[in-house]
Amino acid sequence: MVSETAAMRRALRLAASPGFVKGPNPRVGCVLIDNTGAPVGEGWHAGAGHPHAEVAAIADAGARARGSTAVVTLEPCSHTGRTGPCVDALIAAGVRRVVWASTDPNPIAAGGGERLRLAGIDTAAGLLAADADQLNRSWIFAHRSGRPYVTWKFAGSLDGRSAAADGSSRWISSAAARADAHRLRARAGAVLAGIGSVLVDNAQLAARGDAGEPIRYADQPLRVVIGHRQPPVGARIRDDAAPTLRIPTHDPAEVLAALSARGVHDVLLEGGPTVAAAFWRAGLVDEVVAYLAPVLLGSGPSSVADLGVATMAGAQRLDVVAIDVIGQDVDANVRITARPVISPVPSNN
Amino acid sequence: MVSETAAMRRALRLAASPGFVKGPNPRVGCVLIDNTGAPVGEGWHAGAGHPHAEVAAIADAGARARGSTAVVTLEPCSHTGRTGPCVDALIAAGVRRVVWASTDPNPIAAGGGERLRLAGIDTAAGLLAADADQLNRSWIFAHRSGRPYVTWKFAGSLDGRSAAADGSSRWISSAAARADAHRLRARAGAVLAGIGSVLVDNAQLAARGDAGEPIRYADQPLRVVIGHRQPPVGARIRDDAAPTLRIPTHDPAEVLAALSARGVHDVLLEGGPTVAAAFWRAGLVDEVVAYLAPVLLGSGPSSVADLGVATMAGAQRLDVVAIDVIGQDVDANVRITARPVISPVPSNN
Repeated sequence: MVSETAAMRRALRLAASPGFVKGPNPRVGCVLIDNTGAPVGEGWHAGAGHPHAEVAAIADAGARARGSTAVVTLEPCSHTGRTGPCVDALIAAGVRRVVWASTDPNPIAAGGGERLRLAGIDTAAGLLAADADQLNRSWIFAHRSGRPYVTWKFAGSLDGRSAAADGSSRWISSAAARADAHRLRARAGAVLAGIGSVLVDNAQLAARGDAGEPIRYADQPLRVVIGHRQPPVGARIRDDAAPTLRIPTHDPAEVLAALSARGVHDVLLEGGPTVAAAFWRAGLVDEVVAYLAPVLLGSGPSSVADLGVATMAGAQRLDVVAIDVIGQDVDANVRITARPVISPVPSNN
Repeated sequence: MVSETAAMRRALRLAASPGFVKGPNPRVGCVLIDNTGAPVGEGWHAGAGHPHAEVAAIADAGARARGSTAVVTLEPCSHTGRTGPCVDALIAAGVRRVVWASTDPNPIAAGGGERLRLAGIDTAAGLLAADADQLNRSWIFAHRSGRPYVTWKFAGSLDGRSAAADGSSRWISSAAARADAHRLRARAGAVLAGIGSVLVDNAQLAARGDAGEPIRYADQPLRVVIGHRQPPVGARIRDDAAPTLRIPTHDPAEVLAALSARGVHDVLLEGGPTVAAAFWRAGLVDEVVAYLAPVLLGSGPSSVADLGVATMAGAQRLDVVAIDVIGQDVDANVRITARPVISPVPSNN
């Protein structure tokens, strides 16, 4: 139906409206329409501890929820977390029909559709599902594969150096590219680096806004430092800009298991070269974002350490998703977004 | 005058029509127009040993050359090389007026305009000069700076490797990028590589057409191998696909002087890393063309050897001229064309 499709487009916009929600929950939007197709209420989920989208829409509609059709971007949940199951709320509100886009991949929360049907409510699944799946891509990936989606980001020179001979790396990329990389951090559930690169760069790993301004703690990714050494007292990673977790291991699968257990479904891997190589060799990199600056260094560490490639036939080839120019003129950097040609086998976390 | 500008545009197209002329001469086009602005003859220069553009246009016009205006992309030459001076031909043909675009930077051939004026012929210089200068950019550069224009081309992985750990480099870049690089070879007066990379890759260094087909000997660049070792018997560089010159030195200035003496005004430097670094450190790279492939190698030689950069403040920054995607989908490579931020000081060859 045209009106349900229009309502789903609106619900998708609502779902995206809070930006990138931190924590374990997906982004969801809901629109209630009456039997003429007119909207009578709408809502979205603003993060863990806030009402689910369906509950917010029912509250918005008040008495007009009765007999309406609920159009929602994700199959309504049937489990009690911090809030009660949405299916109960929809049944109690007297909703006549429920249409959703993505099927819930979460084995704990799934089965909502079945419960609605058992309650005599008409249901339809899959409307604009591709758009909705894209909205919660990493969340769906995490539920299906049992581990977070890993994006490896690096900045390098034209000749593939990630730092100069003395280890200095500020700034290899342009201001525009760095601002773009901060947007990646702000979207991620966790930003991960090895203790080695934290020590060399005194990296803070917190996200900043486009003008370099701090963003609030609640919107920050979890900062994750792996390895056995401790960041020294006074290290920027120890400041209160963002939550921080130290995981004293070098095993990528173990790291991702620990993050999955915390509900992280989206990891931005920032290096250094040894950590990047360890994740790559474990088949635990799902996407690569490379910022390449029009700079030559001629010496200094490479962006990634040994990958076990002996000859060109073993080259690790990537599928290019996008090539973009970030910044202008002398500040023009190239951003290459790509994925491994052979999808990594999900690890058994 | 509108008609002279239109004639100059036509002359520029004629100049470009033979593609990239090998040898020491510039590309030149000439259109003769009568006093109503109608073209009465046209010609272009097809390379050393062929008639100059003005002579070809006069021959094309026949008796109608008398009283016409010659519109020519370069100031007519006043010296005798393999052909006689064009100014004599223009005077003998009874041309009334001569309009040119670029001023001749060649100290041997210059002074044509002055000789025309002394012969009572009306002259005008500089019409669409920027377009004409662009057409013969490297030729003008070579005459002004006393050495060839040097373009350094390399192909690398995202992590800056020019080959795998065992030295193999076929093929790091996509077929489309390799075809593009062959176009660079076909345009160059000389293609230069160190004996080391010739030995490792058994590189042929000849230009091929877009479909990989051989192109004729007369259209090939001069293949130049530098260094003290000899290519072994049977090496592809010794074949008869293109002319070849061995220069037994590692000194970039000496190499360029030898090429200048042969009338080469455009060198494509293809490496390897040590040769590239030597030219860069000597300030003898005018342009960089980097083909970056969506591939990770993790080990293997870098695109360029030590440049003497100790810390990020000494990074060699480039002005980006263009960023282009060559090829599509999994074959998408990035071509970055850039120039040193500080123009190299011309060497005293």
